[in-house]
Amino acid sequence: MHQEYIIPDPWSIVEQGFDPEMVKSSESLFSIGNGAMGQRANFEESYSGPSFQGSYVAGVYYPDKTRVGWWKNGYPEYFAKVLNAPNWIGIDIKLDGENLDLHHCQKVDDFRRELNMKEGWYRRSFTATLANGLEIAFQSTRVLSLEWDELGMIDLKITPLNRDAEVVFTPYLDGGITNEDSNWDDKFWEIHGISSQGNRAFVHSMTNKTEFHVCTYMGNRITLDGEVQQMEAMTDEQPLSIRQSYTVKASKGQVAGIEKYAGYTVSTNHQVDQLISAANAAIDQGMETGVKGIMNSQAAQWKDVWEMADIVIEGDVKAQQGIRFNIFQLNQTYLGRDARLNIGPKGFTGEKYGGSTYWDTEAYCIPFYMATKNQEVARNLLTYRYNHLDRAIENAGKLGFTNGAALYPMVTMNGEECHNEWEITFEEIHRNGAIAFAIYNYTRYTNDHSYIPEKGLEVLIGIARFWAQRATFSTDKQQYVILGVTGPNEYENNVNNNWYTNFTARWCMTYAAEQVASVQVNHPEDYNRIISKTGLSEDELQNWKEISEKMYFPHSEEHGVYLQQDGFLDKELITVADLGKENRPINQKWSWDRILRSPYIKQADVLQGFYFFEDHFSEEDLKVHFDFYEPFTVHESSLSPCVHSIQAAKLGRMEQAYTFYLRTSRLDLDDYNKEVEEGCHITSMAGTWMSIVEGFGGMRVKDGTLSFEPQIPNQWEAYTFKVNFRGQILTVRVDHQGASYQVNKGDGLTIINKGEALTVEPSR
Amino acid sequence: MHQEYIIPDPWSIVEQGFDPEMVKSSESLFSIGNGAMGQRANFEESYSGPSFQGSYVAGVYYPDKTRVGWWKNGYPEYFAKVLNAPNWIGIDIKLDGENLDLHHCQKVDDFRRELNMKEGWYRRSFTATLANGLEIAFQSTRVLSLEWDELGMIDLKITPLNRDAEVVFTPYLDGGITNEDSNWDDKFWEIHGISSQGNRAFVHSMTNKTEFHVCTYMGNRITLDGEVQQMEAMTDEQPLSIRQSYTVKASKGQVAGIEKYAGYTVSTNHQVDQLISAANAAIDQGMETGVKGIMNSQAAQWKDVWEMADIVIEGDVKAQQGIRFNIFQLNQTYLGRDARLNIGPKGFTGEKYGGSTYWDTEAYCIPFYMATKNQEVARNLLTYRYNHLDRAIENAGKLGFTNGAALYPMVTMNGEECHNEWEITFEEIHRNGAIAFAIYNYTRYTNDHSYIPEKGLEVLIGIARFWAQRATFSTDKQQYVILGVTGPNEYENNVNNNWYTNFTARWCMTYAAEQVASVQVNHPEDYNRIISKTGLSEDELQNWKEISEKMYFPHSEEHGVYLQQDGFLDKELITVADLGKENRPINQKWSWDRILRSPYIKQADVLQGFYFFEDHFSEEDLKVHFDFYEPFTVHESSLSPCVHSIQAAKLGRMEQAYTFYLRTSRLDLDDYNKEVEEGCHITSMAGTWMSIVEGFGGMRVKDGTLSFEPQIPNQWEAYTFKVNFRGQILTVRVDHQGASYQVNKGDGLTIINKGEALTVEPSR
Repeated sequence: MHQEYIIPDPWSIVEQGFDPEMVKSSESLFSIGNGAMGQRANFEESYSGPSFQGSYVAGVYYPDKTRVGWWKNGYPEYFAKVLNAPNWIGIDIKLDGENLDLHHCQKVDDFRRELNMKEGWYRRSFTATLANGLEIAFQSTRVLSLEWDELGMIDLKITPLNRDAEVVFTPYLDGGITNEDSNWDDKFWEIHGISSQGNRAFVHSMTNKTEFHVCTYMGNRITLDGEVQQMEAMTDEQPLSIRQSYTVKASKGQVAGIEKYAGYTVSTNHQVDQLISAANAAIDQGMETGVKGIMNSQAAQWKDVWEMADIVIEGDVKAQQGIRFNIFQLNQTYLGRDARLNIGPKGFTGEKYGGSTYWDTEAYCIPFYMATKNQEVARNLLTYRYNHLDRAIENAGKLGFTNGAALYPMVTMNGEECHNEWEITFEEIHRNGAIAFAIYNYTRYTNDHSYIPEKGLEVLIGIARFWAQRATFSTDKQQYVILGVTGPNEYENNVNNNWYTNFTARWCMTYAAEQVASVQVNHPEDYNRIISKTGLSEDELQNWKEISEKMYFPHSEEHGVYLQQDGFLDKELITVADLGKENRPINQKWSWDRILRSPYIKQADVLQGFYFFEDHFSEEDLKVHFDFYEPFTVHESSLSPCVHSIQAAKLGRMEQAYTFYLRTSRLDLDDYNKEVEEGCHITSMAGTWMSIVEGFGGMRVKDGTLSFEPQIPNQWEAYTFKVNFRGQILTVRVDHQGASYQVNKGDGLTIINKGEALTVEPSR
Repeated sequence: MHQEYIIPDPWSIVEQGFDPEMVKSSESLFSIGNGAMGQRANFEESYSGPSFQGSYVAGVYYPDKTRVGWWKNGYPEYFAKVLNAPNWIGIDIKLDGENLDLHHCQKVDDFRRELNMKEGWYRRSFTATLANGLEIAFQSTRVLSLEWDELGMIDLKITPLNRDAEVVFTPYLDGGITNEDSNWDDKFWEIHGISSQGNRAFVHSMTNKTEFHVCTYMGNRITLDGEVQQMEAMTDEQPLSIRQSYTVKASKGQVAGIEKYAGYTVSTNHQVDQLISAANAAIDQGMETGVKGIMNSQAAQWKDVWEMADIVIEGDVKAQQGIRFNIFQLNQTYLGRDARLNIGPKGFTGEKYGGSTYWDTEAYCIPFYMATKNQEVARNLLTYRYNHLDRAIENAGKLGFTNGAALYPMVTMNGEECHNEWEITFEEIHRNGAIAFAIYNYTRYTNDHSYIPEKGLEVLIGIARFWAQRATFSTDKQQYVILGVTGPNEYENNVNNNWYTNFTARWCMTYAAEQVASVQVNHPEDYNRIISKTGLSEDELQNWKEISEKMYFPHSEEHGVYLQQDGFLDKELITVADLGKENRPINQKWSWDRILRSPYIKQADVLQGFYFFEDHFSEEDLKVHFDFYEPFTVHESSLSPCVHSIQAAKLGRMEQAYTFYLRTSRLDLDDYNKEVEEGCHITSMAGTWMSIVEGFGGMRVKDGTLSFEPQIPNQWEAYTFKVNFRGQILTVRVDHQGASYQVNKGDGLTIINKGEALTVEPSR
């Protein structure tokens, strides 16, 4: 564990005391977002200490020209990355002529940050003594509205404590921002116009190349002791920014306040020439609703979120705080309202990984969103990939595949591949399987049988075609092999016959063929449309069958396990426990070649297959494979412990399951990986949720029925989670006496508890 | 073949007619060098058409900060690269006020370039009509002196043909040069001072970081119809350059000439404060010797080179031109006088591959230099690696190896690794074997048994230690394996048990142990010194033996061949002949993953092992392996055809051997790979030499005796080559009647011709 400064609290993330060393970490942890925009918890007033500025608009990206050491054929020319957007939070504060800057104050006391997860706001307060001797109290509260998702609000208050003071607020909009992560120091943004109207100002800028137009706006209101002051701004237009100043005379003890209503309007949602009027409408909304009204709306919106998504843990406040933080961050990142958006690994908390979409969405996030939102949300996530199918076919084409074979990108913003390590981009093709699996998983969970004929089947066909071409026949083995891949365990590159990949490939071909047959019978019109569009032939189906039947899986008789890949047993099989601590984490201590030839596993690979496809294996199978692979697993991916926690729980090994759970649930709060400054691990947070619901709760869908195998860690008194299953909200509470179930919304349903059917009536 | 514009000629490279499209190609092909410096054949006068400027000083490099897409632990922080050095060849020419620029002339006739390989000079001539109507004849001759290796000379002549004319020569030195190949657009050079003395000028500059000081200098002399004109220069000092102008009135038909004596003096050879006086001494030498004297000296020096190195081919002028071009370029690049220098893959003809040292030197160049120079030259090349041993131990340390294990870098300037693709840098470790093999090869050829005790044994121990740590025991196979390597065939990455690598590793350990034993007996003092320095223990020797005895080699019973690596037979084994032409070259047509999972071989891999270690295999073994692997070989490395030519000749397949030979001998002249603009393939030129001497001539050293199995391609009438064997110069002439031998220098020697001993007496 790297840090322990976050104060345990069931509903809030709290920091107390000012430590400049922690500023960047807190900027990540106290990030706020509303699905449409998000920002790191940077200070409003100027701060000259180390800080990492970040403000992001969902879906606005820039295709940065690829820069690599050695070019390999097939690399994408551009890497689309999330952009640091114009800054609207800035409010410079001059107090009796001196700039407020915590880095240069005589004294800072009672510094406190709170991220209130229950009601969805972020507040920072402190008292400070400036170099000029003035003592002040400071409080700012920030909200990105869930109800009006173009609207943000800052409510900032200054109270002179030891004398009367002149307070100058200078709220500003700054279009002169840059990305820390830029390949060629390109200019990402171009300013199209800067203007003001009274207490309002607008920066109209456009991203280069992608030509997203964004209007960054603000409307300001000054208060004194809560009374609105009618003041005219002193406006200062600069080439890249605009500043509006207000001078307030505050007597000792009086509260000088500024309300800033600000945010973005974007050309993805408005005509370009309507951006300023849309911004004005948002300001009107903010001004009319006011601070209190916005806070109330926000609390109500978050109440709705929590009603479906909350997990209560009794007897362990840190675990409680951890799981709520995860659920809160996921909801800040993606609310499922817009099928054009997706879930970047760092959400709105940093630039790393380009803010793009990975297979994390299908493998980890969809189960969370399926169970905690209306089913349209998961369907939107599936549709995102359907909308990218043509690009996936193009992507496969760049690698030499033909006839409508689809390879979904490893990393994407707009459907195009955005990554350029050959061993990942070209070889980590198992991602295609997760995209097909998500369709299966969605259908199984929701019972929505319309998605496959409408959209999903085309995706399944494209994916099956890819696998059929990618598998090749080994005359030596007289079986089909898949050569040169990287499995989920990225500590192996360019291996042959990764078991997970081969198994997934076979599953995809089989499932696609089944769905073709099913759609033919049940949706003949869709069937005809799809056959005509894709040109799918009987020969192809036959070929998928042939390959599936003759797929090769590396296996060890001696150990009774499937091998992660060909040649795995040639490695020096020293377990992690027997590896000196000085070697870990191996991704920091060892050179890449040494990692590759070691047996160490970054994240679940064979066990990921046992997770996705558990119905194909007995519990004894799982046990043998878990016991063989887990001892070699270093869990150096944030996505690893959750799957292991679920598997350990399934094997009844609750101590081990709990240990894995701890690693995932407070990964960022306690900064296990020493990198939270760069942003939070948003997608792995869904894995934490899965650890409780699927792991401890043992939730599965079996033959259309929800099934539970509830267990509870010794360290907890009880835990409660809610899931939305086919329109009904089921509350599951587990304590050391057993589980109890309650239907909060819906007509009641039959579930399976520890193998026995149980009818749960709606609660009164 | 991409181009055919070079006029066949036995001793010269000739271009006739001006084609702006060919300028960059000719700049490579007509490059000149003298081992200490070199330059592309850029024009002296200004030229506004497409051109690639290049002027290089041997051993002067810059550590360019590594730039990669994704960092992998173990990458070097810097990549040392050859630098484009200040330009001293420039002479602007104004004719009646108009700048001479072939890109803007009304007419250019009789354009001709000649690179005279016999005498070592480069000449360019043409007549041109300028926009102002003036017609002129132009000739410039350039020499980089072999005798005085800091001295270059330009003899440039202008003759007005249709009227009297004012000719203004402005020779200059330009320090404001940049590299085309730069990672971060760093400034590589800093100017320390610019000065002039009469008709002489100096630019003192220093490379950043490495702090090589270089004085670029010129001394100029003006002539009219051959008469030296006493003229004072008009000097113009600029921040980065210095220009000296001379105005000559030439009547119609009169020859206005400028002699420019110029070059570099470098801090590697002089005190920094002596650089200008050294430059003055070089100018004095040039001025005193004069154009004729320098031309005579140059011809004499090259006569000496050719006397030992020439190959005469009768009946095939293009083959003759090709082989002489290769021998000439090798000698321009490296003369073996300085153990700090080595042979960059592009020599002084371009920037690519950083001008650095690769295993090419040991695998391909050492045999050439051993046989065509005094043995000190090859010894210097070995010493270069001995001097880098500490760095090789550091390099291995960065990858986690201990106890004096040495891994020589894939690419280097100063002993440090300079490359950063993990699959090459960390995994193409077979290079270590070539460095050990070169020691064996040198000792075998020269009978110099002093190198190993003095220097070589320490290198052999470091290398053997590396292999002993890199091989690991497979409990599954009960044998030692070497996992995660890239073999000589770079179209396979991160494979297990590359046969060539495993075989080489075993050979290195065995050979090192033998040499330890031999030095112990024959050079006890050296032995004690080395044991004390390296701490080599009996246990280690025992361990090398154990690993060597239990080394695993992948093998196919069915095909009766060693497999290139584990899993090779799982590939789709479609031969190159059956692969559609539209797929080739695969390195341009296919994405990297597709190349990797294909069976196609970039350059000899198993067959490279059969070449180095041929005594370990029967001719039948060779035949089976050649027939198995050659059909999958695409020869997309310039280093591939020569080894195949040698092996085909050994199998008596002279037609095939000749086809391979053609691909290597005129690779650059005919631009097979469509890239000669970037520079020539210098190191592979040594392979061409080997194709004739070891391939067609069948030369080997067997039990200390030179042995030949001479054959001749049908297309030739005869060929003659010379080799220096242990101080005697042997001339071998082969025609369709057989071979004849002559000793030109020495006491005579016994050789083996087609298996029979033959005593060759010295010629009178």
